Amino acid sequence: MTSVGVLGATGAVGQRFVQLLDGHPEFDVSVLTASPASAGDSYREAAKWRLDTPIPEDVAETTVRATDPEEIPDDTDLLFSALPSDVGAAVEPELCEAGFVVSSNSSNARTDEDVPLVIPEVNADHLDLIDVQRDERGWDGALVKNPNCSTITMVPTLAAIDEFGLERVHVSTLQAVSGAGYSGVSSMEILDNVVPHIGGEEAKMETESRKLLGEFTGAEVQYHDAVVSASCNRVPTLDGHLENVFVETDDDPTPADVADALADAPTLDLPSAPDPLIRVFEEPDRPQPRLDRMAGDGMAVAAGGIQTTDTGLQYNCLAHNTIRGAAGASVLNGELLASEGWL
Amino acid sequence: MTSVGVLGATGAVGQRFVQLLDGHPEFDVSVLTASPASAGDSYREAAKWRLDTPIPEDVAETTVRATDPEEIPDDTDLLFSALPSDVGAAVEPELCEAGFVVSSNSSNARTDEDVPLVIPEVNADHLDLIDVQRDERGWDGALVKNPNCSTITMVPTLAAIDEFGLERVHVSTLQAVSGAGYSGVSSMEILDNVVPHIGGEEAKMETESRKLLGEFTGAEVQYHDAVVSASCNRVPTLDGHLENVFVETDDDPTPADVADALADAPTLDLPSAPDPLIRVFEEPDRPQPRLDRMAGDGMAVAAGGIQTTDTGLQYNCLAHNTIRGAAGASVLNGELLASEGWL
Amino acid sequence: MTSVGVLGATGAVGQRFVQLLDGHPEFDVSVLTASPASAGDSYREAAKWRLDTPIPEDVAETTVRATDPEEIPDDTDLLFSALPSDVGAAVEPELCEAGFVVSSNSSNARTDEDVPLVIPEVNADHLDLIDVQRDERGWDGALVKNPNCSTITMVPTLAAIDEFGLERVHVSTLQAVSGAGYSGVSSMEILDNVVPHIGGEEAKMETESRKLLGEFTGAEVQYHDAVVSASCNRVPTLDGHLENVFVETDDDPTPADVADALADAPTLDLPSAPDPLIRVFEEPDRPQPRLDRMAGDGMAVAAGGIQTTDTGLQYNCLAHNTIRGAAGASVLNGELLASEGWL
Amino acid sequence: MTSVGVLGATGAVGQRFVQLLDGHPEFDVSVLTASPASAGDSYREAAKWRLDTPIPEDVAETTVRATDPEEIPDDTDLLFSALPSDVGAAVEPELCEAGFVVSSNSSNARTDEDVPLVIPEVNADHLDLIDVQRDERGWDGALVKNPNCSTITMVPTLAAIDEFGLERVHVSTLQAVSGAGYSGVSSMEILDNVVPHIGGEEAKMETESRKLLGEFTGAEVQYHDAVVSASCNRVPTLDGHLENVFVETDDDPTPADVADALADAPTLDLPSAPDPLIRVFEEPDRPQPRLDRMAGDGMAVAAGGIQTTDTGLQYNCLAHNTIRGAAGASVLNGELLASEGWL
Repeated sequence: MTSVGVLGATGAVGQRFVQLLDGHPEFDVSVLTASPASAGDSYREAAKWRLDTPIPEDVAETTVRATDPEEIPDDTDLLFSALPSDVGAAVEPELCEAGFVVSSNSSNARTDEDVPLVIPEVNADHLDLIDVQRDERGWDGALVKNPNCSTITMVPTLAAIDEFGLERVHVSTLQAVSGAGYSGVSSMEILDNVVPHIGGEEAKMETESRKLLGEFTGAEVQYHDAVVSASCNRVPTLDGHLENVFVETDDDPTPADVADALADAPTLDLPSAPDPLIRVFEEPDRPQPRLDRMAGDGMAVAAGGIQTTDTGLQYNCLAHNTIRGAAGASVLNGELLASEGWL
Repeated sequence: MTSVGVLGATGAVGQRFVQLLDGHPEFDVSVLTASPASAGDSYREAAKWRLDTPIPEDVAETTVRATDPEEIPDDTDLLFSALPSDVGAAVEPELCEAGFVVSSNSSNARTDEDVPLVIPEVNADHLDLIDVQRDERGWDGALVKNPNCSTITMVPTLAAIDEFGLERVHVSTLQAVSGAGYSGVSSMEILDNVVPHIGGEEAKMETESRKLLGEFTGAEVQYHDAVVSASCNRVPTLDGHLENVFVETDDDPTPADVADALADAPTLDLPSAPDPLIRVFEEPDRPQPRLDRMAGDGMAVAAGGIQTTDTGLQYNCLAHNTIRGAAGASVLNGELLASEGWL
Repeated sequence: MTSVGVLGATGAVGQRFVQLLDGHPEFDVSVLTASPASAGDSYREAAKWRLDTPIPEDVAETTVRATDPEEIPDDTDLLFSALPSDVGAAVEPELCEAGFVVSSNSSNARTDEDVPLVIPEVNADHLDLIDVQRDERGWDGALVKNPNCSTITMVPTLAAIDEFGLERVHVSTLQAVSGAGYSGVSSMEILDNVVPHIGGEEAKMETESRKLLGEFTGAEVQYHDAVVSASCNRVPTLDGHLENVFVETDDDPTPADVADALADAPTLDLPSAPDPLIRVFEEPDRPQPRLDRMAGDGMAVAAGGIQTTDTGLQYNCLAHNTIRGAAGASVLNGELLASEGWL
Repeated sequence: MTSVGVLGATGAVGQRFVQLLDGHPEFDVSVLTASPASAGDSYREAAKWRLDTPIPEDVAETTVRATDPEEIPDDTDLLFSALPSDVGAAVEPELCEAGFVVSSNSSNARTDEDVPLVIPEVNADHLDLIDVQRDERGWDGALVKNPNCSTITMVPTLAAIDEFGLERVHVSTLQAVSGAGYSGVSSMEILDNVVPHIGGEEAKMETESRKLLGEFTGAEVQYHDAVVSASCNRVPTLDGHLENVFVETDDDPTPADVADALADAPTLDLPSAPDPLIRVFEEPDRPQPRLDRMAGDGMAVAAGGIQTTDTGLQYNCLAHNTIRGAAGASVLNGELLASEGWL
């Protein structure tokens, strides 16, 4: 078994990591970190467990450590990071310097030139950017990122559609409250309401998408030249980001062509990789967050409502934002790192 | 005072008509109709009143009539229609034939060539299509329509932006449950959920927008040649449709240019016409349905989040779907009909 | 395997039956009925499947039959009924007359003197009322009922507390919308709202509780003489009825005594019986519907907030209303019927 | 005009004070305080205004002061307090010492022996406790409190029912999220959920109710000897606390007797006092938070569902928790203080 740790294990995404790693066939959670105030407490005490499955009993009594490189045992093979981005920006480089491999969900450094931003089914080859990273930074460890939850929902569908020549994308998101963390959206803000703004989210979607869809030359990632415009909204759903996507392509595929391309998106032989990657619905009113977010144990993307219009293609896609869009994305990157021999 | 009637007065939109007409300076409600099952009951009995203001006492004891041309007194100057579209399609022409002027919110006949589809602040001149209608149909009365609630939210903003040369529009809607009527959306469908499909809504937005923005030649309405693609979603809000709009124009206005154009949209001197027509927010997270749907007593459009992107303009707009988007729209059309001497 | 059927299989509770029976170790679903309009369709067509797990594939292609005794094959060992109560009242006796054993969730006949109303962990011995029923009605089959969902949430806790001498109960319920069926509660009724009335529910709780807690003499059930007053509310939750219970007892148990009594409530060795029956929380803010409704795969009751006050005991309890409170209750009764040799 | 100030004016209750005092016939807002961080800012800047009516323009440019006795001008006749209870506990006595009259919604000191806890329509005579307070504390000013929002919803109904001899009360509350302040309840906690615990709330209801219903002897308040047991729940509503009340009385009134007693509850001739005090519904499913919280401009109590059961009376009551239950309660107390000559 590979010995893994979770950095920032008590927050909403941290708890998802612990939940997803419970019973994992390859990874064994041996290290849990949190802010210094929780150091020394049992995980049960430190995490006020809020998921709707019970706290894993074998992890519950683990003593939480401070998020400090000196506190991480040397024989920890892989660290998952659910740190706030400012903490991640400070600590993750220190950990990589100290030799640890970090699969991080934190938003810092995602667009750094030598940091691979990876969705395994989409751009696994970008992982080789680690060689560049190690050269430039002199690290023994490595830092790998997964994209933002709203980006990760859409990009697997765009990657499949790129066979028709992706040119322009307009996307509106209807994002669940869990994306902002447990206390990120107050009930007064969102009951009987929608908030048509999520700070920084639109820029993340526009930039991260193009990096993910870009080409790794061996030295750098050349961004895809498609143009992406995003409009992001917070809606009163708990989990599952739904997105309306308008796409213009070089070719003129039919809706059936698009459905086939989505349904045939490549899958991987990794423990957390869903098969199919994209579940395509024929019913025009699907996917829906509550009904479809758990497709593929929360790791699949769902798509539907495919149609052609006067401006191009139009469809909807959905993924579970704290599983495929966060903790599950990092776990899958960890599995890829392991299978490709980077640990 | 002008004597008016409300057809289909007991449903969700019908109740809004009664609420908005209570204390109206020009219109006096003398006729209320409903399905035959309710005929003979008092309005208090027939309408299970569900609005959060009390039932108007002077209307509560009015006896409800069947929706039947023979039941409408000849001296009723104006009829507002909140009929289901199939009933509207059958009854409204009979009423016009019998000499009544009907300002209708029902979705039937909106794109008939000789039926004016009107938002007074946008295309009041289309009302003259009534002459064509009377010629062709031999009616003494007249049939005037207001557009669909999701269309009416966006079109005032597009009309203002058309000074920059409107070319293409992509729009995603986040629509409130009241748009489907009191029982239209079950709680099981929408709690912790979004439904990314509203039957027929996308086509309505695409077609009605172009008719409203079109030019009346004296003989017909020539549709605007902008292309509109819409993606419609039902979200768990009670009232207020929010829309993310992406617009491409001939010119390249700055966000400030667009804000000015929206803020300066023309207003009218009619009792229900708001001033300003469009309330423009600087805060990026506004408008929001719960906070802003009652702007201008529910008759204003709110806009915000104006920005330019790599593909053009982007902004959000909002209107109260059962006031500006339904009953209030018909009342305003009625006020325009009265002021222009059509009654 | 026991061959079973589900009557009324396409509705919300019917779909739960199909979901719970998928993979059942003893029961094999061979018959599905619905209204005549659906007869002849595949179950996939007839049931617009709305649960968040996929439709069981082996059942999806089963042809739906009309709910008519002549349509049920003779070799069907057990029928589960999710019929509307008026249909149940008409059809269930005919089926029992025809020799079928019916485990019914429908609300009809629950307080008929010779109809066992059973929660297996509470009053399994009442099943012997079947002998009385057969004598009186001349049936070869049998009719067994489970109680109403709000009753079933509370009664296991009252049964445990009865060791302290149950005297008076005041209970307020906070009931989920699924209890009213898929279209029972419209979103306009319940978003940002509570409805403090559920027709007939209070009387059901007051009467059914006393029958369940009563003593079977061999000839009849003598109702428990505790007094129960209920106040029932519909709240905006999807699943899980939460109840505030105030209890007065002969003895004066401490909260710890009560917690022990609840935690030690007897369990059964049946496939769907949870262990423990009652999950007792120490945290004062638990149980909560979203977090705890799936305890024991939706078959456990959760309890917490136990305290003593100037008027007696006070605590909260919770159960999943469409699993333990409906379909799961009938399945468990079916398992009891099988294990005790009634099939 | 009476010159008034609002302490803690930027929070959720503080904003309600500002909204309710806008256009008040007797009170003119001249002072607004907040935490030191906001001192010097305009109110528009300091308060991120979140109510669904616009910020009052004449107050928007007022400069916010620190909540410090030295910052309050001597000629301020009356201070309304929306301070957090710990701040209130520290600052309110200093202000009273300095000669200010404080009408406070903060929860500190409500059960201090010499502090009047007042609902004007219920126990206006308790205001004379100010004489005792001034004697004991040597104050020139005075401190008057209104009760907790959940208490204030129920007590007007209990006061009316006390003519039948109030003995025991069991009450379950379904409380809106605004009661916890703007950020008090996160959306992750309450969407599709209920939280059956509000820290300290039950004890407040049990104690404050008995003080309010108690008798003022001229020297002290003798608590009413009725027993009150409360169970408090947070539900996903924005405003309006609904309560299920079970009451046992000496006499045996009929539901009609109770309805009459509630409908005839005394009203006062003060600007914010509603008439009637209690709106009684015959429909069994009313009152409902969304439909009825604004009765009497948010200052009335609504009641319905009156019935007699085997244990006594049962009914539901409702009030707007941030108007009648908080800011409006303090304003009404201020009006009473003014009319009785205490300013």
